[in-house]
Amino acid sequence: MKKAILASTSTLHGEDYLSYLLPHLNNLYGSNKEILFIPYARPGGISHDDYTKKAKQAFKKANLDLRGIHEFEKPLDALKNADGIFTGGGNTFLLVSELYRNGIMETLRQVVLYGTPYMGTSAGTNITGLTMGTTNDMPIIQPKSFKTLGFVPFNINPHYLDPDTNSTHKGETRETRIKEFHRINTQPVVGLREGSWLELDGNEITLKGQLSARIFECNKEAYEVEPNTTLTHLN
Amino acid sequence: MKKAILASTSTLHGEDYLSYLLPHLNNLYGSNKEILFIPYARPGGISHDDYTKKAKQAFKKANLDLRGIHEFEKPLDALKNADGIFTGGGNTFLLVSELYRNGIMETLRQVVLYGTPYMGTSAGTNITGLTMGTTNDMPIIQPKSFKTLGFVPFNINPHYLDPDTNSTHKGETRETRIKEFHRINTQPVVGLREGSWLELDGNEITLKGQLSARIFECNKEAYEVEPNTTLTHLN
Repeated sequence: MKKAILASTSTLHGEDYLSYLLPHLNNLYGSNKEILFIPYARPGGISHDDYTKKAKQAFKKANLDLRGIHEFEKPLDALKNADGIFTGGGNTFLLVSELYRNGIMETLRQVVLYGTPYMGTSAGTNITGLTMGTTNDMPIIQPKSFKTLGFVPFNINPHYLDPDTNSTHKGETRETRIKEFHRINTQPVVGLREGSWLELDGNEITLKGQLSARIFECNKEAYEVEPNTTLTHLN
Repeated sequence: MKKAILASTSTLHGEDYLSYLLPHLNNLYGSNKEILFIPYARPGGISHDDYTKKAKQAFKKANLDLRGIHEFEKPLDALKNADGIFTGGGNTFLLVSELYRNGIMETLRQVVLYGTPYMGTSAGTNITGLTMGTTNDMPIIQPKSFKTLGFVPFNINPHYLDPDTNSTHKGETRETRIKEFHRINTQPVVGLREGSWLELDGNEITLKGQLSARIFECNKEAYEVEPNTTLTHLN
């Protein structure tokens, strides 16, 4: 029985790290638990220790302890024994590369499918789709594979950004990039705006937060779905 | 003797495709030549034929004919016999993937190093660095390798964009991304703003256009270089 929060971003503008997600942590993880943190994505190049410290401080506000997976001698055992798992954001290529390099991608998949509660933000959410093919990140390292956890039967684009109609910049818009993705891939893509998350409860997938999400299906016009819509049948 | 124009973008805001580069094409390629076009990057998913047609129309204004590499039965021979080569922009992952899949990456490198004039825009410029690790594109397909042509001894970030100080969006700035790149890679990165290009003439590398470029060296503060600066010694 999967149970997960897949959030577009860790932090809303003007708020503290994870602040808007704190009210939902106990529902996901329970309380007085020790959560296993996966810091591999290293936002801005921050060290595993510093990143873990930052997440630990935030989780403390929800009466949850937290420990970095890099602190364990046997990361596979850490995954199997964890009360819950949180994967933080940063660079998706680095995160996926490290998950494969440390040989834990498949075990991470297994424990969450069998019920260990999971939260991801940004890159940590990106990897819960079928592939990392709709990340916004820079390919700073080459992972063994782009295939990811597949907790949902589609791809996710976190930090989804609407086209800036005033821009004179000729770089591609997000929508153009996803259109390019669909020239060679067929799975749907969920564009999750900042402040939105997907709630997974067993086989149910529900959009949460205040904002609509943008859904891109291959060979269809993109469309919006409102909060509390189920996305269970999107595949 | 390398001879190349490595442009950040194909099109400036409010201008026609390649318009600002047309005055420089004859200096690079000569005139009345047939240029070989590499359309693999397929911007917005456009077909090879449509993309070639678009480039052909622009090149005609400089008295240059153009033919797509996909029209040749033997692309390796096409590369070896070409009067000049132009690689258009689009998705860098797709471009690199196709260059490897068609077995032409190494030959493309050889013919340009031995003197076939080359122009790239956007993705076509990205691949002239040491790796594609500083592309802005979405990883819509997994290439065999991130290693690219190495016409310059550094990486290039095309469409370089300064941080938007008014933005409330939490996605990483370009500078943050490049900083993450430098946590695991050591080569310099040249952030080429739209309208800028690098001119390669033998071993000389010179910044051209009206704007400064932003240079990121590992473990150094980023700095600006002015047009007509030589970047020959950056490595």
